[in-house]
Amino acid sequence: MFEAIVSASTFQDALDSVSVLVDECKIRLNEDGLAIRAVDPANVGMVDLSLDAAAFESYEADGGVIGVNLSRLEDIAGMAGSGDLIRLELDEETRKLHIRIEGLSYTLALIDPDSIRQEPDIPDLDLPANIVLEGNQLDRGIKAADMVSDHIRLRVDEEAEVFYVEAEGDTDDVDLEIPRDELIDLTAGPADSLFSLDYLKDMNKAIPGDAEVEIELGEEFPVKLHYELAEGQGQVTFMLAPRIQSD
Amino acid sequence: MFEAIVSASTFQDALDSVSVLVDECKIRLNEDGLAIRAVDPANVGMVDLSLDAAAFESYEADGGVIGVNLSRLEDIAGMAGSGDLIRLELDEETRKLHIRIEGLSYTLALIDPDSIRQEPDIPDLDLPANIVLEGNQLDRGIKAADMVSDHIRLRVDEEAEVFYVEAEGDTDDVDLEIPRDELIDLTAGPADSLFSLDYLKDMNKAIPGDAEVEIELGEEFPVKLHYELAEGQGQVTFMLAPRIQSD
Amino acid sequence: MFEAIVSASTFQDALDSVSVLVDECKIRLNEDGLAIRAVDPANVGMVDLSLDAAAFESYEADGGVIGVNLSRLEDIAGMAGSGDLIRLELDEETRKLHIRIEGLSYTLALIDPDSIRQEPDIPDLDLPANIVLEGNQLDRGIKAADMVSDHIRLRVDEEAEVFYVEAEGDTDDVDLEIPRDELIDLTAGPADSLFSLDYLKDMNKAIPGDAEVEIELGEEFPVKLHYELAEGQGQVTFMLAPRIQSD
Repeated sequence: MFEAIVSASTFQDALDSVSVLVDECKIRLNEDGLAIRAVDPANVGMVDLSLDAAAFESYEADGGVIGVNLSRLEDIAGMAGSGDLIRLELDEETRKLHIRIEGLSYTLALIDPDSIRQEPDIPDLDLPANIVLEGNQLDRGIKAADMVSDHIRLRVDEEAEVFYVEAEGDTDDVDLEIPRDELIDLTAGPADSLFSLDYLKDMNKAIPGDAEVEIELGEEFPVKLHYELAEGQGQVTFMLAPRIQSD
Repeated sequence: MFEAIVSASTFQDALDSVSVLVDECKIRLNEDGLAIRAVDPANVGMVDLSLDAAAFESYEADGGVIGVNLSRLEDIAGMAGSGDLIRLELDEETRKLHIRIEGLSYTLALIDPDSIRQEPDIPDLDLPANIVLEGNQLDRGIKAADMVSDHIRLRVDEEAEVFYVEAEGDTDDVDLEIPRDELIDLTAGPADSLFSLDYLKDMNKAIPGDAEVEIELGEEFPVKLHYELAEGQGQVTFMLAPRIQSD
Repeated sequence: MFEAIVSASTFQDALDSVSVLVDECKIRLNEDGLAIRAVDPANVGMVDLSLDAAAFESYEADGGVIGVNLSRLEDIAGMAGSGDLIRLELDEETRKLHIRIEGLSYTLALIDPDSIRQEPDIPDLDLPANIVLEGNQLDRGIKAADMVSDHIRLRVDEEAEVFYVEAEGDTDDVDLEIPRDELIDLTAGPADSLFSLDYLKDMNKAIPGDAEVEIELGEEFPVKLHYELAEGQGQVTFMLAPRIQSD
């Protein structure tokens, strides 16, 4: 069984974090909250979302798994006003999810979870550098990099304690320098990796501008981005595989 | 002869109600106000607009008929600021309409009224149910229905005194339930009809969100939508033919 | 050498005035300020921009010339917030322009100035009529003319002291009449010329709505439009060749 009431904005933010990577996903209806893990078709980007029972107005579930079409679910959630509540109820017999928003009922046909790409195991990496900044700062670096290249380089200058977002184009270069005192926090360490800008742009779309983003970074290693939803009662982790640096 | 001065917003609202259905129309320049009746090329949707002389700052006419290109006329009206007045004057000899907005003059060539589709007779139907709601409520039902289907079902539950807006998609369903106490008024009666969503979406575009909309509804009968313009000095009626219900 | 600091909004306004006509241009880094002259590929529209050293927070140059890709430079300037400063520094050896905006560095490869179309000589015409109005008034006339034609006629009625913006379409006409008392200033004289609307629309895009625009006009002569940037410390002149009047 599954029955829950959640604020529209919390539900929308949670769905956004997954829909930037995949169109369909499995949702685990655990006793202590919702959980989604998904990987894009090319196996380059992953997302791990958990939304604690405490993030809901009310929450009851017993461990089932459902498969959903995310853009459908986002369209429905988009019918809610900013202060509205969304009521979710699973009909186990018909395998449909009933969604109610202020007098409006939507009956969503679910997808067979077995037909959805398997959930990834998100590896536990021990990455040497840890950068904490505002979503807006990351966004600025990504927009600047996008002017000149398809790739973006994230690195830490250990000695100077500076976080760099860089991109090299055919003729032009971009370089955003954020020293320790403009970061929320920095644990400097050997860290320098190159990433596909397309993926990072997609992930960035889901990150609220005022969110505190924690970046775990290594040398030619995947990057992990963490941020919170619903005043800390939801957690999102993105992981993105590195590109090989050609120079 | 025809000479009139009207506020830009009143004129724009009036034109919008017709242009959602047809590109060209006849305007009857009656002594007591403007009147437009039009039907779309497929004979599915009709509009009946009257704008009383009292809706104008000044109005003089003696019963002529002109043919106009509506999108042209809307573009010109769109040049006016929200508080501007629009001056209209018919040149009977050249068959041109002079439109003046704060120093700007536009000379609009008229269309031969005989070349425009004949004005429809809008039948006087005695429909059993009468629902009065806000434009915003209808808009919400139409947006929701549009997520799953090309058709929309409007019906009244006589006993429960509830107005329903419903749509059935291939896999998903939508259902907006508005009980009597959330409506402005309700005369319950046997009423259940299916309509083309495309037409209703077009009509809905012209209805201001805060307008009071009266819906006359029957069983597999056309629906009539009434709302007012210019603080009651203009009236719009839309009529839409039903689709046959397949189930 | 060239090193300067300028407010983002001043720099953006200056670039806009040139980019509406050409994609690449030469920038003269004179001792007393920046200067750009450019003509469109068809030799119909010209621009002459000067941005005085006083328009900058700091300015040092010794008379060099650089070639730039304007849309690139506009994209970079667009990364700045409205209150941000843009720091420009020329690296003479690498022929690159370093652009710094609040921690963000952009290295822009310059274009060989010899590969850019030659700067035009903007002729000193002694035009008989001089009209001074607000950018918004000119904008209104251009928008109205655009509804009916590809050409726009600017003329002065010397006796009545009225400035006219007119356009004749196949069936409809447009006519904006601005009498002397609604203009900022008027020196009446024999003036009546026809212009391509496309060019004037492009030039108009760069003119701020609240700018004071001075129009120099003659009979079948080019028109000159002057307006100021940066509180008078920048000057823009557009010149547009006339079209032959067919009637």
